[in-house]
Amino acid sequence: MGKQEQAAISPTRAENYSEWYQQVVKAADLAETSPVRGCMVIKPWGYAIWENIRQALDGMFKAAGVKNAYFPLFIPLEFLEREAEHVEGFAKECAVVTHHRLEAKDGRLVPAGELTEPLVVRPTSETIIGESFSRWVKSYRDLPVLINQWANVVRWEMRTRIFLRTSEFLWQEGHTVHADAAEAMELARHMLNLYEKLATDYLAIPVIKGNKSDSERFPGAVETFCIEAMMQDRKALQAGTSHFLGQNFARASKILFQSEQGKEELAWTTSWGVSTRLIGGLIMCHADDDGMIMPPAIAPAHVVLLPIFKKDSDRETVMAYTDTLAARLREKQYMGRPVGVEIDTRDIGGARGWEWIKKGIPLRVEIGPKDIEKQSVFVGRRDMGHREKMSVPTDRFVEDIADTLAAVQHTLYQRALEFRAAHTVTIDDKKAFYDFFTPQNTDMPEIHGGFALSPWCRDPACEAAIKDDLSVTIRCLPHDEALRGADAGSCVCCGKTAKGRAVFAKAY
Amino acid sequence: MGKQEQAAISPTRAENYSEWYQQVVKAADLAETSPVRGCMVIKPWGYAIWENIRQALDGMFKAAGVKNAYFPLFIPLEFLEREAEHVEGFAKECAVVTHHRLEAKDGRLVPAGELTEPLVVRPTSETIIGESFSRWVKSYRDLPVLINQWANVVRWEMRTRIFLRTSEFLWQEGHTVHADAAEAMELARHMLNLYEKLATDYLAIPVIKGNKSDSERFPGAVETFCIEAMMQDRKALQAGTSHFLGQNFARASKILFQSEQGKEELAWTTSWGVSTRLIGGLIMCHADDDGMIMPPAIAPAHVVLLPIFKKDSDRETVMAYTDTLAARLREKQYMGRPVGVEIDTRDIGGARGWEWIKKGIPLRVEIGPKDIEKQSVFVGRRDMGHREKMSVPTDRFVEDIADTLAAVQHTLYQRALEFRAAHTVTIDDKKAFYDFFTPQNTDMPEIHGGFALSPWCRDPACEAAIKDDLSVTIRCLPHDEALRGADAGSCVCCGKTAKGRAVFAKAY
Repeated sequence: MGKQEQAAISPTRAENYSEWYQQVVKAADLAETSPVRGCMVIKPWGYAIWENIRQALDGMFKAAGVKNAYFPLFIPLEFLEREAEHVEGFAKECAVVTHHRLEAKDGRLVPAGELTEPLVVRPTSETIIGESFSRWVKSYRDLPVLINQWANVVRWEMRTRIFLRTSEFLWQEGHTVHADAAEAMELARHMLNLYEKLATDYLAIPVIKGNKSDSERFPGAVETFCIEAMMQDRKALQAGTSHFLGQNFARASKILFQSEQGKEELAWTTSWGVSTRLIGGLIMCHADDDGMIMPPAIAPAHVVLLPIFKKDSDRETVMAYTDTLAARLREKQYMGRPVGVEIDTRDIGGARGWEWIKKGIPLRVEIGPKDIEKQSVFVGRRDMGHREKMSVPTDRFVEDIADTLAAVQHTLYQRALEFRAAHTVTIDDKKAFYDFFTPQNTDMPEIHGGFALSPWCRDPACEAAIKDDLSVTIRCLPHDEALRGADAGSCVCCGKTAKGRAVFAKAY
Repeated sequence: MGKQEQAAISPTRAENYSEWYQQVVKAADLAETSPVRGCMVIKPWGYAIWENIRQALDGMFKAAGVKNAYFPLFIPLEFLEREAEHVEGFAKECAVVTHHRLEAKDGRLVPAGELTEPLVVRPTSETIIGESFSRWVKSYRDLPVLINQWANVVRWEMRTRIFLRTSEFLWQEGHTVHADAAEAMELARHMLNLYEKLATDYLAIPVIKGNKSDSERFPGAVETFCIEAMMQDRKALQAGTSHFLGQNFARASKILFQSEQGKEELAWTTSWGVSTRLIGGLIMCHADDDGMIMPPAIAPAHVVLLPIFKKDSDRETVMAYTDTLAARLREKQYMGRPVGVEIDTRDIGGARGWEWIKKGIPLRVEIGPKDIEKQSVFVGRRDMGHREKMSVPTDRFVEDIADTLAAVQHTLYQRALEFRAAHTVTIDDKKAFYDFFTPQNTDMPEIHGGFALSPWCRDPACEAAIKDDLSVTIRCLPHDEALRGADAGSCVCCGKTAKGRAVFAKAY
C-alpha cells in the first residue's frame, strides 16, 4: 500500500474542490449519475450509509412515539394549490404526470390516455398527507397524530450535483398534528434535537441549530428550524429542517377537531425531514485527498481483512486465521450493531488496499504468515495517514475493537469541530465582513473565510443586499445564546440596531 | 368484550366476500383509499406489517450475498422500448411524465416546460437497472452482480382493489447478472425458495411453487417461477415471482462481459419481487368475521394489555402491575424480535377489546384487581373464538410467551393448510372440471371448488379455452412431483396426451 506517493484522488481538494467531490463519490463507489436528467443511482456502498441513517433515525422516531406510514406518490394539482406560498415554492420545479398509457404512432410510442387532472410527483407531502389527516382527526382525543414516511421525492432542479441536489432523492418526512401551538412548537424543536443527535453522534458532523430567516423559510411554514454544518470548503450545508406550520396547512387541508370544550378548532401541524443529501455532507465534511473516510457509527462496514500470502503453501493457514478473526470480530458490537467485517481475497497487489482507503472503511487489517507467527495483525486506521500502520496483538485488537472504532469516531468529530472553529469568526464591521467573504489568496483557491457571526437588524433588505453582493446568505439565527449574543450592536449591513447575531455563509 | 353477539365485520365472508375484505381493511385500520385514483394510504398498523416483511426478507437476501441499492424512479421511454415483449406488457398502464413545471394560466396552474423525451414512472426496473449493469459489468470477475431495491412502482390498473391491485405499490425488486445460464437459473430458484420461506414461516400462508405457463410469464422473461396461495374464497393469489430472463434483457441493455477465455459474451439475468399485495393475501388467508388475525411472526405487535379498574382507588395498583408486566414481556424475544406490547388505557368499555380483536393482535390480556390478587392475567387468543378466554398465572404467561406465540403461528398455518387441502382436488375428467368451477350452492354463494390439479397438454389453445369458458387460469406447473404427476394421462380440455398436471384456479 505504501508505494503510491500522490494523493489517490485527483484533483485534490486544494486544486478543485468541486471536482474532487465528484471524484471521491466515484472512487468510493458510492453513487453515479444516471441517464435520467438529474437522477442518481445510489450504489451499494452508498446505499448502506442511507440504511444506517434510516435505522438510527427510525429508532429515535419510534422512541418519540412516531409511527411510520405511506402516502401516495402523486398529488392532484388542486391539492398543491390550496396553500398559496407552498405551491408558489414548488411549481417551478415539479414533474407532472399527464398521461396514463403509451400508444404506437409512426413506429414509436407516444403518451396517450390524457388525465383530466394532471398529477404532480410529490416534491414533499404536506398537502396529500393533510388530506388524510383531515379524515383521521375528529376530536382532541385523536391528537397528537405523529407520522413519518420514508420515501422518494422529486424536485426538478436545474443545476444538480450528486447527493447534494438531485431531481429525485430519498428522505424521511415527518408530519404531526396537535391541539395547540405550544405542543406543535415543542415537537418541531424535539425533532431538530434528534437531527442534531444524528449529525453529531452518527455522522460526526458538528452542527449549529437555529431558525431560518423569513426569506429562507419552507414555503408555507410559520417557522423553520435547521441544522447547519460547515464543509471543508468552508461553505454551509443545510443538513436537516423542522417546520412549525402553524395553522396554515390545517386551514388548507381542513384539519379540524372538536376541542375538550366542544368547540371546533383548526389544528396545528409540523413537518420535518432529512434526505440523502446528508451523504453528500458526510463526504464533504470528512473525506480527504485519498478518498472517503467513513465515521464508524454510520459506516457500511467497519473492518476489512486483507489476507496476504506469497506462497500457495501459506494460503490455508492465512485464510483459516482470517476467517477465525472475522468470526470473532462479528461477535462484537459497536453502537448497537454487530461489527461489520469484509474479507478481500483478491490477488490484485497494492490496488486492493488502496480501494479500501478510497472507500473509507475505518480499519484495514493485513494478515500475513509473519503476523500469524507473532499472533498479531497489521492495522491501518483510515483517519490517520495511509503510511501509519501498526502491529497489534490479535487478541487485543479483537478485545478493543469497539474502543478503537469509538476513537476513530471521536477523532473525526473533533477534527470537524476544530475545522469549523478555525473558520468561524465574529465580525461586527462591514468592511471586515465583505473582506471575509471575498476569496483570499489561500492554499485553496476561491475559498472564502467561512462562517461569520454578525449582527443583523432583521430587515430583509439587508439580507438581500448581502446576498446580491457576496452570494452569502443567512444560514440561521442560532439558538445557542453564546453564538447569538444580545439584541444590541449595529447591523453589519445598515448599522441600525441589531437583534442578535446571525450565521452568514456561502452555502450549498 | 362478550356482549357483541353478531360478527364484528359486516358483511361476513359468506354474505359478501369482496365487501367483507374491504371492511376488514377498514376495521383493522390497515389502509385507506386515497383521492388519487387507485393509490392507497398505508396506515401505521398496515405499514408495520410491511416493515416486518421487509426486515425478514432483507436478512435472507443479505445472507444470500445480495446488496441493496437505489435506481431512478423515471425511465426514459426509449429504454422501455428496447425489449419488445416488455414494453408491450407495460405500455397500456403506465404513468407518463411530460412536463417539469407548472405555470399560471386563466387563474389555474397548468403543466409547462415540456420534456423532449417523456419519462415513464417505473412499473418495474429491468431496463433502467440494466443500463447501470451494462456499465458495472466488464469482465467475468465482476460477476455475479446481486442487487435488490426497496421501492415504489406504478402500474395504471383500471380496476383496483386495496393492497391487491393498486396503481402505486411498494415492493422489492431483485436484479442479478451471471456469467452462465445455469447459475442464473439456480439463483432465480433460490429466491423463489426464500419467498416460500417468507410465506410459510412468517405469513403462515402455505404456497405451491411452480412455473408459469407461457401466456402468464413476465413480459420479457424466459421462465417465470411463482408461489401461489389459496384465499378463503378458494381463489388463488400469486404471492411472489422470480424470473429467469435468459439473455433478453442483457441483449436489450447491452450487458456484455469478457469471459475467462477472453471472449465477449452476453450475460444472463434474473429478476424477482414481492409487494404490498402480500398484505392483501395475509388478510384474505387469515382474517375471519371478527376482523384481522395477525400471524405473530409478522404482527405489528404481539400483546395488548388492557388494564381494568372500576374504582379510581384501584388505578394505581393496576397500572403499576400492567407496566411491570409490559417491561417483563418486552425483555422476551420471538422470532428474533423483542415481544411487542401495546398498553391501551382508554376508558371506552367493551369497544376497547373489540378494536384489538378487529386489528388482529395475537394476544389480549385483561388485568383487573381480582387478577392481580390471584397473580394471574385473563388471556384471549385471537386465533380462538372471542369468547374463549382463560386465566393464566402471570409468571407462566411471561415465561411461555414465545411458545404461546409459536402456537398461534402454528395454528394459523395449519388452518390455512387444511383449508387448502379441503379445496384442492385432482380432476381428470372435463365435465367434473367444469362442474368444479361452476358456483355451487354452498354456504358461501358464488364460491367455486378451489384448486384443480388437472392434466394439461401444454397447448395454449386449451389454456385459452378454459379461461374463456370459466375465467379459470393455469396458476402454475407445480415443482412438487407429487402434485405434478407423470407426463401421461389426457389433457382435461382436449384429451390429448398431457405433460403433467397444472394447478387451475380462479385468481386475483
